[in-house]
Amino acid sequence: MSTQISLLPDSKPEQEPLVFLKDRMVPASQASIAIYDAGIILGATVTDMTRTFHHRPFRLEDHIDRFYRSARYTRIRPPFDRDRMEEISRELVRHNARLIPPGQELSLVHFMTAGEIASYSALPGTPKKMAPTLCIHTFPVPFEAFTHLFTEGAHVVTPSIRHYPPQCIDSKIKHRSRMHQWLADQETQQVDPRGITLLLDLDGNVTETSGSNFAIVQDGGVVAPSARNTLQGVSLLTVSELCRELDIPYEQRDFQVYDVMNADEALLLTTPYCICPVTRVNGATIGDGKAGGPVFRRLIDAWSDRVGLDIVGQITGRPAVSSSAGSS
Amino acid sequence: MSTQISLLPDSKPEQEPLVFLKDRMVPASQASIAIYDAGIILGATVTDMTRTFHHRPFRLEDHIDRFYRSARYTRIRPPFDRDRMEEISRELVRHNARLIPPGQELSLVHFMTAGEIASYSALPGTPKKMAPTLCIHTFPVPFEAFTHLFTEGAHVVTPSIRHYPPQCIDSKIKHRSRMHQWLADQETQQVDPRGITLLLDLDGNVTETSGSNFAIVQDGGVVAPSARNTLQGVSLLTVSELCRELDIPYEQRDFQVYDVMNADEALLLTTPYCICPVTRVNGATIGDGKAGGPVFRRLIDAWSDRVGLDIVGQITGRPAVSSSAGSS
Amino acid sequence: MSTQISLLPDSKPEQEPLVFLKDRMVPASQASIAIYDAGIILGATVTDMTRTFHHRPFRLEDHIDRFYRSARYTRIRPPFDRDRMEEISRELVRHNARLIPPGQELSLVHFMTAGEIASYSALPGTPKKMAPTLCIHTFPVPFEAFTHLFTEGAHVVTPSIRHYPPQCIDSKIKHRSRMHQWLADQETQQVDPRGITLLLDLDGNVTETSGSNFAIVQDGGVVAPSARNTLQGVSLLTVSELCRELDIPYEQRDFQVYDVMNADEALLLTTPYCICPVTRVNGATIGDGKAGGPVFRRLIDAWSDRVGLDIVGQITGRPAVSSSAGSS
Amino acid sequence: MSTQISLLPDSKPEQEPLVFLKDRMVPASQASIAIYDAGIILGATVTDMTRTFHHRPFRLEDHIDRFYRSARYTRIRPPFDRDRMEEISRELVRHNARLIPPGQELSLVHFMTAGEIASYSALPGTPKKMAPTLCIHTFPVPFEAFTHLFTEGAHVVTPSIRHYPPQCIDSKIKHRSRMHQWLADQETQQVDPRGITLLLDLDGNVTETSGSNFAIVQDGGVVAPSARNTLQGVSLLTVSELCRELDIPYEQRDFQVYDVMNADEALLLTTPYCICPVTRVNGATIGDGKAGGPVFRRLIDAWSDRVGLDIVGQITGRPAVSSSAGSS
Amino acid sequence: MSTQISLLPDSKPEQEPLVFLKDRMVPASQASIAIYDAGIILGATVTDMTRTFHHRPFRLEDHIDRFYRSARYTRIRPPFDRDRMEEISRELVRHNARLIPPGQELSLVHFMTAGEIASYSALPGTPKKMAPTLCIHTFPVPFEAFTHLFTEGAHVVTPSIRHYPPQCIDSKIKHRSRMHQWLADQETQQVDPRGITLLLDLDGNVTETSGSNFAIVQDGGVVAPSARNTLQGVSLLTVSELCRELDIPYEQRDFQVYDVMNADEALLLTTPYCICPVTRVNGATIGDGKAGGPVFRRLIDAWSDRVGLDIVGQITGRPAVSSSAGSS
Amino acid sequence: MSTQISLLPDSKPEQEPLVFLKDRMVPASQASIAIYDAGIILGATVTDMTRTFHHRPFRLEDHIDRFYRSARYTRIRPPFDRDRMEEISRELVRHNARLIPPGQELSLVHFMTAGEIASYSALPGTPKKMAPTLCIHTFPVPFEAFTHLFTEGAHVVTPSIRHYPPQCIDSKIKHRSRMHQWLADQETQQVDPRGITLLLDLDGNVTETSGSNFAIVQDGGVVAPSARNTLQGVSLLTVSELCRELDIPYEQRDFQVYDVMNADEALLLTTPYCICPVTRVNGATIGDGKAGGPVFRRLIDAWSDRVGLDIVGQITGRPAVSSSAGSS
Repeated sequence: MSTQISLLPDSKPEQEPLVFLKDRMVPASQASIAIYDAGIILGATVTDMTRTFHHRPFRLEDHIDRFYRSARYTRIRPPFDRDRMEEISRELVRHNARLIPPGQELSLVHFMTAGEIASYSALPGTPKKMAPTLCIHTFPVPFEAFTHLFTEGAHVVTPSIRHYPPQCIDSKIKHRSRMHQWLADQETQQVDPRGITLLLDLDGNVTETSGSNFAIVQDGGVVAPSARNTLQGVSLLTVSELCRELDIPYEQRDFQVYDVMNADEALLLTTPYCICPVTRVNGATIGDGKAGGPVFRRLIDAWSDRVGLDIVGQITGRPAVSSSAGSS
Repeated sequence: MSTQISLLPDSKPEQEPLVFLKDRMVPASQASIAIYDAGIILGATVTDMTRTFHHRPFRLEDHIDRFYRSARYTRIRPPFDRDRMEEISRELVRHNARLIPPGQELSLVHFMTAGEIASYSALPGTPKKMAPTLCIHTFPVPFEAFTHLFTEGAHVVTPSIRHYPPQCIDSKIKHRSRMHQWLADQETQQVDPRGITLLLDLDGNVTETSGSNFAIVQDGGVVAPSARNTLQGVSLLTVSELCRELDIPYEQRDFQVYDVMNADEALLLTTPYCICPVTRVNGATIGDGKAGGPVFRRLIDAWSDRVGLDIVGQITGRPAVSSSAGSS
Repeated sequence: MSTQISLLPDSKPEQEPLVFLKDRMVPASQASIAIYDAGIILGATVTDMTRTFHHRPFRLEDHIDRFYRSARYTRIRPPFDRDRMEEISRELVRHNARLIPPGQELSLVHFMTAGEIASYSALPGTPKKMAPTLCIHTFPVPFEAFTHLFTEGAHVVTPSIRHYPPQCIDSKIKHRSRMHQWLADQETQQVDPRGITLLLDLDGNVTETSGSNFAIVQDGGVVAPSARNTLQGVSLLTVSELCRELDIPYEQRDFQVYDVMNADEALLLTTPYCICPVTRVNGATIGDGKAGGPVFRRLIDAWSDRVGLDIVGQITGRPAVSSSAGSS
Repeated sequence: MSTQISLLPDSKPEQEPLVFLKDRMVPASQASIAIYDAGIILGATVTDMTRTFHHRPFRLEDHIDRFYRSARYTRIRPPFDRDRMEEISRELVRHNARLIPPGQELSLVHFMTAGEIASYSALPGTPKKMAPTLCIHTFPVPFEAFTHLFTEGAHVVTPSIRHYPPQCIDSKIKHRSRMHQWLADQETQQVDPRGITLLLDLDGNVTETSGSNFAIVQDGGVVAPSARNTLQGVSLLTVSELCRELDIPYEQRDFQVYDVMNADEALLLTTPYCICPVTRVNGATIGDGKAGGPVFRRLIDAWSDRVGLDIVGQITGRPAVSSSAGSS
Repeated sequence: MSTQISLLPDSKPEQEPLVFLKDRMVPASQASIAIYDAGIILGATVTDMTRTFHHRPFRLEDHIDRFYRSARYTRIRPPFDRDRMEEISRELVRHNARLIPPGQELSLVHFMTAGEIASYSALPGTPKKMAPTLCIHTFPVPFEAFTHLFTEGAHVVTPSIRHYPPQCIDSKIKHRSRMHQWLADQETQQVDPRGITLLLDLDGNVTETSGSNFAIVQDGGVVAPSARNTLQGVSLLTVSELCRELDIPYEQRDFQVYDVMNADEALLLTTPYCICPVTRVNGATIGDGKAGGPVFRRLIDAWSDRVGLDIVGQITGRPAVSSSAGSS
Repeated sequence: MSTQISLLPDSKPEQEPLVFLKDRMVPASQASIAIYDAGIILGATVTDMTRTFHHRPFRLEDHIDRFYRSARYTRIRPPFDRDRMEEISRELVRHNARLIPPGQELSLVHFMTAGEIASYSALPGTPKKMAPTLCIHTFPVPFEAFTHLFTEGAHVVTPSIRHYPPQCIDSKIKHRSRMHQWLADQETQQVDPRGITLLLDLDGNVTETSGSNFAIVQDGGVVAPSARNTLQGVSLLTVSELCRELDIPYEQRDFQVYDVMNADEALLLTTPYCICPVTRVNGATIGDGKAGGPVFRRLIDAWSDRVGLDIVGQITGRPAVSSSAGSS
């Protein structure tokens, strides 16, 4: 496979992470997008992201499947099929993982724009026909940014800005037209600079945060919002599987801020840190306000078992002493 | 002024258009955006665009004012004030206009992203603090793409996708999170590959197209949608001024597809080609279905007078023989 | 029974199909509605339709039950009870079926308007009191109009027009105030003259087409829209029963166009042709774009078994060679 | 003109009102619609209605114009142009007016369905191609049904059923898919058997009744709902003109039930009886609860002047003694 | 415990019911709220209510739990914890129950306002800091007001006023800002002075009445509205438990007025009278229009068993002769 | 008049402010509401408030008119007519004003509940028939609470909670079912403990704050939200009159947060402090962020002129040095 990826002549792959851009591997420092690309001009970009455990990408097939579903919905046609997408992705991870220390992990990002818009280019020879701009790249999972989520728990805030409704764009596609989230984050940061935006939909239902699915624990079971207006999260899927294994009831249905405030626990579910406890909503404590309720612990322990490492310990640098101690 | 703009050492400004990027002028071929810029990752970009007439930017102050209003709303702070923004913009136009033939004109684009997101970068030294990425660039107005709009008139199509409501994001900001328009355009092109998407809002009111304001002519007056959910178009502002001068009633209020189908004329209002007639909506003819009704002609003639050139003639390569012939 | 139905003196029942109108059988050529009937003036008409297999009406009781539910909701009181309605209906089918060839089948229609509105009549003696206008009639199932649905599959299109919300009128009643569907169809035909309108509701959920329920196949199961805003289809009910028999998961919940585009299969469910495959939505292919996926085949085979004839073969004139060949 | 209208051989035009149906005049007793006409099957019918004063149709051109606007929106193409439509209409009124006493007046109705749907017909030879079914007919204005409106005033009721929103169908077209109004009327009659339904829109704004526009008098001016969701009433247009003549402020904007309850007066505006006072809403009195406030009187007097007869006196059989007595 | 409740010096607890107000027991005649309390000024009051069977409060813990959930959501902090709240409540019931005859029962009410708003007080010394005003009181269950509900059944009416949506306030909290219900009741009483308001939500779904949950019986099962927009009723919870015991299907999902009109039975579920049959909706009969269908009877019998008395018999003064006679 | 007001025997009107309660004057310390009053139980209370300037109530007739409009809409019938309401109100102000120092002013509050709900009373003799509970009272305008509004300006915050829509309750009535505002305030205080909630409506339009109307200054004119969803403020009315006098454009139309962020000035308009500048919205500065822009100054000066005192000076204790210094 590596022979098929032609590097630019002056790149030094041994010293710098690689990026797959359009049709080849380039060093990260040379990976950039033209100012007249539809990704810049329209935010017309589909994307996906997974991460590694022990330097192996987690559920890569599921992420690539979702990437192709996003592509199909937006009619931006990937330049090649799922198999080759997976092959290049694994190659990239293999290469870039060599450049990071063993305790560190990689995020693996796929994104694809609708391509360059020739009529916006100042350069005469730009091809008129649009061809998608595909990019696959990695970056180290920023564990240090997540530590407080496991010690204090997350603080979610519901700003006045609402999530896009499906009449406008379907939140089931992972795309990059997210100015509304940027706007919502500005409001959230008025409440708490570390606050995480929890978007409501136009009807006042809880949806998701900018970077994660959201769920609550109620009567001992996990409840996630209905599928209408949220990303089909792979972490959420993993949690639903773990719930089945652990005999924890799992359900998807609409709920509202009342349910969050009166939940036993609340959770963020996301690729970079899998699951974290939510301890506050709009400044009010959830449950007893302590990070790490019993359902969180059972889930994170089971997930740690599945991937063969102590997920929270790796993030915080402090091995977890969980109820099922020894297992992770 | 030109002394203040430091060019990269190897650029050849005499042969290539320049782009102002972040804090300096660079040749167009070197202007690109990092893959971990918020413009790419979130579509968190505000923008504006004007064009030249006789190589002089049209209503540049109004466009820069709107750009600063977008910036204030999104809390992305421009690196310098309106005056310097205007100064650099004029400098850029002066330089780049020298490279195009006299009959051609320039589009002048401003865009500013929320900046690079360090945690997405694979490169160790990326600064943690976000600083907006400002870019000012030009490209030739693609007249050839507009010719048919003046001979056949535009065909607008209302797809099932709706415009974002103000609860999610305010359409009064000119931003680049426009995946919903991309999606809408895919539907539109099923009806007519040259069709132009006319977005309805969630309540079924007519709003705007991807690239222009929209208005109808009813009982001899111009009616544009209410301000709630559309860009505060400078071309629309110009038309409202021309209406006042020409004693044509002008009004902004909600209307629906019924009103478009039964209008006397319909118009697109936009920077690149100022005004064009709309002759069809969802495949049905508007008025007599001919491009160029009387109100359109009076407005385009007055606008041509104002800028001292035959706007349609310049686009189509055929000087207009309008009712006020000789004046433009 | 036939003795109870008094025919008009000059009708020739042996040569012409009969229609039950108001209180008697009349020849089809004499069956018409006054121009001042509420069915014409208001569209205040409830209706139902079944068809025959081997000249026997399919699930007639279920259709008559739904007809009475529609009547109760609209407070248009049928002139007699369910039993007599069924008796007349069977009598009518028996008579009219004799006039068609054995390979042909009949559609059996019930409709009932709110009655004649005396104040709209130009004729002095019109009774002031409204009495419902009941009509029961048949017509041959137009098989030739359905053939392409089984060879190419249906192409569904989501126009900008939305389905009525339950605040205005409940789609669970089968009624004839369907101008919005006519309007929607005009838009659909701009995309594809053979396109079938798939109406979205005000929230962007998929509902139904003008003449059928709609369902998708996802993860091997059949998913139909939630009951809120669609007809309680007897074909849909049949499919849910067949799913139970065949051990195919069946569920009703909200879904959106994204789900249709990424479905494995999609189906129309309707009285005249039972089930047909949907292969395109808004011009994009569903699954592999071929008519007749595995779930469709299992369902249509089971349905064929149930009614003792090859449903698709009868429509297309070409006997199906299905996976359960020999059974139908 | 009359020579161009071919009557059926056995009609006796001298004794019976005529109806123009499809392409010819027929006696009223023979005017009926096939049970497989789209007007019956879908409610796909556009319509209009005017009335006579002194046996001359009032603002016939305006009504025909609106009829053609409805036709254009629904894409049901009238079989001939406005002029001929007017000519036939006048011919019909002339003929039918001869059959009523001088003190009586005629309603003149135009309606046009999308045509017969061949596939619903049991009769073999039905043409496949749809051709609109046009019908023009008259009936005596039922004055006796309106008397109480001028002695007691109307009682409007806002039921739970809402008016169709423009996303589904535009209320600016006069069409006959009005089952929701039938349903709403059932609720209204629970409050008052003579109550008149005043439909709210989905946002709680006042729209119109089943058969009339609605307006209130506030601070001495007339306020009608905004144009978004109501018929473009010719009576309303007349009132707006009379307001201008009488120097009564006139405005169209959204208002709610609060405004109706606290209005000085309220009015129904409609072709059959022009204007009538509304004295109750949901059982509560408006103003002093007396029929015929000062603005009503000024308007009805001015309208009476315009048409040269005492409008209310003709309806009630009791000549009005109005403030401008002697003028009408 | 009774020693801890300090009575005002002049109260005569033996002769008058007590009320717990703020921090002490007072005689009912002295229990009142300051005119500048937030309960008066804002309706900022959370509440709950249970009743006794045989003078013992029914599911007091569940009611207190819900009261604390309401308190948490509104951030009005109760002055003490659940245990003490229960203790005082039981003490109060014990005392007040002694003053009523054995066949009578007590309603037990908890309410807590946000406290006195000093800036509204005319009295100088009012403390600036708000402290919640807690009140616990009882009153005899007014059985005579319920009798007709069991003989004729309830008549529910859906007025034009809609229930608050969760974007504004969550109906899951039991609060006292219910002017909209007052308004709705005014409309309902136009239909039937004894009518009970059944509120629809903004989307036309059935929610609840002013004082009870609502459910229908469909295909032998009980269907209650989805949890989104209704109180989490303890009576509804009891019914769901009884359904499980009796093997009656129980489900919560959205339904509409159509479903009510075509239901087999309909039920009100509420603390004071547990369950009553609904026999009419908007003037139309439900099922056969008789009070007391089979599912109602099974549920009320089982509930009577659970509490050891004949619930309906106690209310109506006539012991029930139910299908499971002898058991209650 | 004072003879008609019978005081309770032990009140000392000379030393304590009076309150008019139900049908008589009582000392403020004895003014309280029964715990079973509809004002407590349902929030079914209409209200109004004015204040004095130089101890004379401002626009009392306008406030009483609005109070009667609220009463008419809610069908809570005041016990006497407008004239007597005004008479008692003036009497009360005269009495209570004697008890405050000259530099202080009074707020005058009217409120009226739907009356006591007998079935909630524990006391046997409570009358069954509901009679409205009317209360008129005063309290000193709390100037000290407003000082910072004139030095720093107000900070308005738009929380996630939305204003009630008119389908549920019309904001044009001044009522006391305002739990949603309490909830919204809890969110606002997370951003800024002194923040003032600016409620958005369900469509994202700006409406009003809990205690004031809101307006912006745009292009030199004052723009207030459209009347649909806000109180018909007397202060807003005053401002519209002052605008006319001062030749400042004044308009009511929908606007959104974008318009607030980009306004030249923003204003709160309310009885207690008339007008105050708004300098921040959601943490972002409006205009230059200074309290007291030119339009504010012109309006407050003109208002001060009208009432003959320096409004801001009285509040802050520091006489204003305004542009029209000397006039106030």
